[in-house]
Amino acid sequence: MAEKLDYPLLRMFDCYQGLLTDRQREVMELYYNDDCSLSEIAALHGISRQAVSDSLRHSRQILTETEAQLGLAGRLEELRRTLVKLQCAAQAHSYDTIIQLAEHALEQIESQEG
Amino acid sequence: MAEKLDYPLLRMFDCYQGLLTDRQREVMELYYNDDCSLSEIAALHGISRQAVSDSLRHSRQILTETEAQLGLAGRLEELRRTLVKLQCAAQAHSYDTIIQLAEHALEQIESQEG
Repeated sequence: MAEKLDYPLLRMFDCYQGLLTDRQREVMELYYNDDCSLSEIAALHGISRQAVSDSLRHSRQILTETEAQLGLAGRLEELRRTLVKLQCAAQAHSYDTIIQLAEHALEQIESQEG
Repeated sequence: MAEKLDYPLLRMFDCYQGLLTDRQREVMELYYNDDCSLSEIAALHGISRQAVSDSLRHSRQILTETEAQLGLAGRLEELRRTLVKLQCAAQAHSYDTIIQLAEHALEQIESQEG
């Protein structure tokens, strides 16, 4: 399912999974990480396929609403990109670029605007 | 006031201020960033000193409870420390250390355990 390759959602899950119940988290992990189908998860938990689908929809809503409020998943993703560039600069021994990118990454961490 | 130098709280504010109301955020900024006293904030908003104190206590509770659930302020602080070390390594042209620290920073971003 295309849905399972939803990286922004997985990044939000990484940041905000602490806001989900144990059950919501488990259903999301089975679906997105373990590639289980709705029917398989339903059978595993002894609930209906519709209940699994509802749980996933509700979890996605919690994650996307929290990201709209806090923006931390996006902020960490920007930081990740800066660090990947920094790794490339380090491989190339581009000293000035490394310093600039480290400075930029620190600004990204410290920025209250994200 | 010692309270105003509470860096962990300020880091949580940076991460989670989106969960506060406009009023709660404004009171926190006046108190922590602008160094206003409770009485000054009370006069500014036409509310009691006690109401200002209650607002600050409630905001702190929201921020600390959210950090207990998500741990993202602590995670960003760990990353910040890694990047400061990386800056030092860049100044010293220690390329092996730079590569190691960039790798570590990426692991810190991608870790679901924080």
